Amino acid sequence: MTDLTADGVTLGVVGGGQLGRMLAEAASPLGVEVVVLDPTPDCPAALPARDQLVGAFDDEAAVRTLAERADVLTYEIELADPDLLARVREETGVPVHPDPETLRVTQDKLVEKQTLAERGIPVPAFRRVDDAADLRAALDELGSPVMLKARAGGYDGRGNVPVAAGDDLDAALEGMGPCVAEAMVDFAREVSVIGVRGDGERDVFPLVENVHEAEILRETVVPARTSGAVREHALDVAREVLSALDGRGVFGIELFEVESGDTAGSTAGERDDGRILVNEIAPRPHNSGHYTIEGAHTSQFEQHARAVLGLPLGSTALRGQTVSANLLGDVEVPEPATLHGVERALATPGVSLHWYGKKEVRPLRKMGHVTATSVTDEPLADLLDRTRRVRDALTFRDTTE
Amino acid sequence: MTDLTADGVTLGVVGGGQLGRMLAEAASPLGVEVVVLDPTPDCPAALPARDQLVGAFDDEAAVRTLAERADVLTYEIELADPDLLARVREETGVPVHPDPETLRVTQDKLVEKQTLAERGIPVPAFRRVDDAADLRAALDELGSPVMLKARAGGYDGRGNVPVAAGDDLDAALEGMGPCVAEAMVDFAREVSVIGVRGDGERDVFPLVENVHEAEILRETVVPARTSGAVREHALDVAREVLSALDGRGVFGIELFEVESGDTAGSTAGERDDGRILVNEIAPRPHNSGHYTIEGAHTSQFEQHARAVLGLPLGSTALRGQTVSANLLGDVEVPEPATLHGVERALATPGVSLHWYGKKEVRPLRKMGHVTATSVTDEPLADLLDRTRRVRDALTFRDTTE
Repeated sequence: MTDLTADGVTLGVVGGGQLGRMLAEAASPLGVEVVVLDPTPDCPAALPARDQLVGAFDDEAAVRTLAERADVLTYEIELADPDLLARVREETGVPVHPDPETLRVTQDKLVEKQTLAERGIPVPAFRRVDDAADLRAALDELGSPVMLKARAGGYDGRGNVPVAAGDDLDAALEGMGPCVAEAMVDFAREVSVIGVRGDGERDVFPLVENVHEAEILRETVVPARTSGAVREHALDVAREVLSALDGRGVFGIELFEVESGDTAGSTAGERDDGRILVNEIAPRPHNSGHYTIEGAHTSQFEQHARAVLGLPLGSTALRGQTVSANLLGDVEVPEPATLHGVERALATPGVSLHWYGKKEVRPLRKMGHVTATSVTDEPLADLLDRTRRVRDALTFRDTTE
Repeated sequence: MTDLTADGVTLGVVGGGQLGRMLAEAASPLGVEVVVLDPTPDCPAALPARDQLVGAFDDEAAVRTLAERADVLTYEIELADPDLLARVREETGVPVHPDPETLRVTQDKLVEKQTLAERGIPVPAFRRVDDAADLRAALDELGSPVMLKARAGGYDGRGNVPVAAGDDLDAALEGMGPCVAEAMVDFAREVSVIGVRGDGERDVFPLVENVHEAEILRETVVPARTSGAVREHALDVAREVLSALDGRGVFGIELFEVESGDTAGSTAGERDDGRILVNEIAPRPHNSGHYTIEGAHTSQFEQHARAVLGLPLGSTALRGQTVSANLLGDVEVPEPATLHGVERALATPGVSLHWYGKKEVRPLRKMGHVTATSVTDEPLADLLDRTRRVRDALTFRDTTE
């Protein structure tokens, strides 16, 4: 694609959540129109998108209709069906990016780890677990406790449970389906990289630092507060990960920076200098890359649109230190969403608010995020404090102040 | 307005051109939904907006329907009808920002200049011109030539003609309607300021420098390459202009930086230190403020949304030196729009493309713009050169390379 025409270029997206919404917001200035497929009427992406098809992610007729309206298909949710996408690509000739094969790999935590390990990319030591005997062997091999993860369907820590040698192993496996057990990593910090595969080019955004709580991302601090050597090594690992994937698009690459002395890495013998292990890969824009909207010369969403359409990639350079913080549902039970405290947030210099337009707030649901850029030359720690104060003043609870 | 709710906040906008489009793009992250009224089906703003009402700007029933759907009404085009807006505000109770009275003032170049001059704000010397006798008097008073301007309806230099003492004055006035004649200003550069009036607060963005050709803006260079003293004085003048206006919103304030020694200013005696004259005011986001999307901590479009909704204003601080350049229709006759050269533009680091989605390209029609931010610490002149090269490589002509 090289020309913008009166009729526009259309990007079909399976999934219409916040990632689809921010993708559509970023695509509009490029003259790229987004059509999303999502089961929820008036989903978050519906507002900035050209159109929404209401249907399940695996509704074959709906995915085919989406393809027929689009120049390129992509997905913003791992629940997309790789077989279906490959079939529709075959039938309609509409390209799908990233490649459905990559989606298949990243959907399965065991296959993902095997794929990386085969290429010598450092991951935590792991073992396939189909039953209690496997789990017992994993505890023997990897040490106790291990992190037991459902191979499919988990996100934000769902389907992840720590299991120790003395636990009831059958009970631990109850309802989990096929699993993988991983050695516990004694990490210094969780870091991540947004990588991108374009048409004949690859690039990485800067290394960022992520603060999780209950396995859900709370804040992203940019750049990561680690040594230059670790930063360089982490970016090298991210580049190797990109080489192991297929198709074009943006990838969220979650990494552990391991405490020196920890030996949880499967290839720790060769890699003990770097202290970087790959945790997970998302074949799509990633929560830890939302900072790029304000923090980088090109946002991860514009970059994803450029990549999947085969346009040249934009600069991944940082514009300045940046912190983003998630707005999670701070309610006990689902209820219609009303966000209080917006006035205070917007009154804070350098703060941008991103509201996802979800009608219902649920406990810990991702409802939006705030990003703060440095208006003055304040230290990064102060910027983080400021962002947290803004985030903490935003609430879905009725405060009747 | 302080809370974001599941149902969202709706901003009704009279006009759905590129300003409405960029306003809707900026409003979406805030959870603010835009509904536009525009006579062209699938107008530029229709893509990112929640909805478009198809109708004339002065269609009373349509404006009332727009008000009934909106929490606040605004306009992005001076062709909006102030009487109608005031009437609809009265009938529906929906606020209109900026105040229709301000629209009335800025719609009439004579009234605008009188309003500013009465407050001691420096403007070029001017005289009301209703007939040839008035025009002759203006040439005597203001010197020859003068700039003759139609009081209503002109933009991008339309309705502006230079007239000299020896010219056929009746012919010059033919078809112009009521006019104002202005002393010719020997300006060093054209500069402008985006000002904003919020709920109890006012602010100005940095002074920028504008390069015009055939009275149409070509490039905006940020910050303006002038002295710190001139910059400070220009911002003071812009603040005075904001005081002379009513209602909330963003205003484009066009200024002349006068060559030292020039005496075209009506109050030049008091102001010869400053060398700043006010040229025109637009009661809306302005072409010379498009750079703010990438160049400032808050874009003029987000700022306009914040202001008219009564939200706190964002930081107007510059993020770094920035250049924007308009993509004008480089065709001889109207034709379906296809923009060539996009690949090269996007391959240039730090370049952002903004495409307005207009179906038809016409000679000198504003079709989009590019903005370049500094990825390295290059001099501003180099950034301007780079931006021009990118812009020049973008064309609507069939080049069949």
